[in-house]
Amino acid sequence: MVTHEWSFGPPAVLAFAGGVGGAKLALGFSLCLSPDDLVICVNTGDDETFHGLHVSPDLDTMMYTLSGLYNQETGWGLAGDTFTALEMLGKFGVDAWFNLGDRDFATHIRRTQLLTEGKTLSEVTAELNRSLGVFHGIIPMSDDPVKTVLTTDEGELPMQRYFVGHRAEPKVSEVRYVGVETAAASPGLQDALTRAGMLVLCPSNPYLSLGPILALPGVRQRMRAFSGKKVCVSPIVGGEAVTGPAGKIMVELGKQVSCVEVARGYRDICDVFVMDDQDQALASEIEEMGIIPLVTSTIMNSEEDKIALAGEILALAD
Amino acid sequence: MVTHEWSFGPPAVLAFAGGVGGAKLALGFSLCLSPDDLVICVNTGDDETFHGLHVSPDLDTMMYTLSGLYNQETGWGLAGDTFTALEMLGKFGVDAWFNLGDRDFATHIRRTQLLTEGKTLSEVTAELNRSLGVFHGIIPMSDDPVKTVLTTDEGELPMQRYFVGHRAEPKVSEVRYVGVETAAASPGLQDALTRAGMLVLCPSNPYLSLGPILALPGVRQRMRAFSGKKVCVSPIVGGEAVTGPAGKIMVELGKQVSCVEVARGYRDICDVFVMDDQDQALASEIEEMGIIPLVTSTIMNSEEDKIALAGEILALAD
Repeated sequence: MVTHEWSFGPPAVLAFAGGVGGAKLALGFSLCLSPDDLVICVNTGDDETFHGLHVSPDLDTMMYTLSGLYNQETGWGLAGDTFTALEMLGKFGVDAWFNLGDRDFATHIRRTQLLTEGKTLSEVTAELNRSLGVFHGIIPMSDDPVKTVLTTDEGELPMQRYFVGHRAEPKVSEVRYVGVETAAASPGLQDALTRAGMLVLCPSNPYLSLGPILALPGVRQRMRAFSGKKVCVSPIVGGEAVTGPAGKIMVELGKQVSCVEVARGYRDICDVFVMDDQDQALASEIEEMGIIPLVTSTIMNSEEDKIALAGEILALAD
Repeated sequence: MVTHEWSFGPPAVLAFAGGVGGAKLALGFSLCLSPDDLVICVNTGDDETFHGLHVSPDLDTMMYTLSGLYNQETGWGLAGDTFTALEMLGKFGVDAWFNLGDRDFATHIRRTQLLTEGKTLSEVTAELNRSLGVFHGIIPMSDDPVKTVLTTDEGELPMQRYFVGHRAEPKVSEVRYVGVETAAASPGLQDALTRAGMLVLCPSNPYLSLGPILALPGVRQRMRAFSGKKVCVSPIVGGEAVTGPAGKIMVELGKQVSCVEVARGYRDICDVFVMDDQDQALASEIEEMGIIPLVTSTIMNSEEDKIALAGEILALAD
């Protein structure tokens, strides 16, 4: 929750993100900006109830990344986590297909407890993050349930069931955000849309990560009307997704796997499109859409990479 | 839940138990009797909600003991358990004073999930036990909440807060079973009271383990009227409790720490009182109460000890 006035100086950034890719750039911003100057709005369309516990995979990936507790090998989960509780749940006949570590379970236990006590997901997210020493604002896109469901050749699959349970293998023909029509943007998102100086779509999956956020009533309209700079960072580099199934889904939905296709989807909410050096030849196509291309290195392996990309984006501020 | 007719042969035993001491004798019975011939009714007066999860310490001690998964050093908890989730909960600012292992957490997560789905504690207990290969009937004393609360010189303390949080140090002046007046004996207990051939009070704490069960409406009356053999095993040996704070509480309540005092409390529901060789000199006092003393070795260290004591008790059957 944004509780302070924006300070002068760097632009106040409202970043939109999903999982691992988005978290990398968000980490870069968090290392460049004070907590007052950054709000990270995170997808909750793949939140799930596992074993009666409320799991928010993208909120947790963001929290673990910014707290430094994340597993740098996988990008998700906690470094050095063990899987003892899950193994025991298996003994109880539970279908434990979704990997939840012992430390990770603590997050879900605590979140569920606080939600059951009547707190909103926004309030719970703020409390969990503060406890882990994360003071940059990580906020859920909504406090209401929205469920990303994929129509596939193996039936209707909620996002995590598709992504983890079926290892993103089924062929996708449609992506729906169930409940989004009646969900409200979270108070923090509504507030940040008013206060921000710059909007950034992080390099996250357009269908599974940013799609649910943009489908929230009023959000895309407010982004269109937003007067500050709007920057999108392509999750597609060199004709494939940097991480995750975005490229595969684009193929299945009959689209070209190209950063141009990503830009086309964001045309109404994008002033500057950040694309990788590998795609330099496509910059003219971006320009033809009336979008300014920024060709640079977008692959973020090291902390320096993340800070560098965040810095380049911040330099775009009006 | 008892679903089969009692078979002929050994007496069908209904055993009453609380924590570690009771679980030892119950294990002995389970090694002597078929699942059809044993029901173990367990105290739930120290059930607690920790981190939003329903924890049933005595039911779990019994389940872990009979499944062979228990920690043989402590008597409670699971062998080789780790405490990773609890440590992480500590990071979330939670007061994690009650030791819950990672494997143990799986039990509480699963129990809570099933209770939330609308199952009774009896149904959940049966399901958890079957999953771990325990087919002898372990049943809760009640499906309704009963809370054992101790009045102490440090205020009112629920049982686990007193026993674990305060290491049983505060001076006890009263023990109450809050909610017991309106709680019903579980279906399994009501059924077993009808079908059993022998009742056994295991060597459990009279105030904290067996007290809540005996205080359930109608239970003590039905035990009095029970026509089969009623056997009590003393948890006090040589003037002190074999395990736990029973002796200390007896002193604080102004009672003599003696097996005679235990027998006096059970006079109306005890035909045979099993006391340790060390207390042989007190046998005549038991007899003077109209109770038959059975002086034998009651200390159960090995599995053989547990089977031997269970066998001696079974031999008392009419």
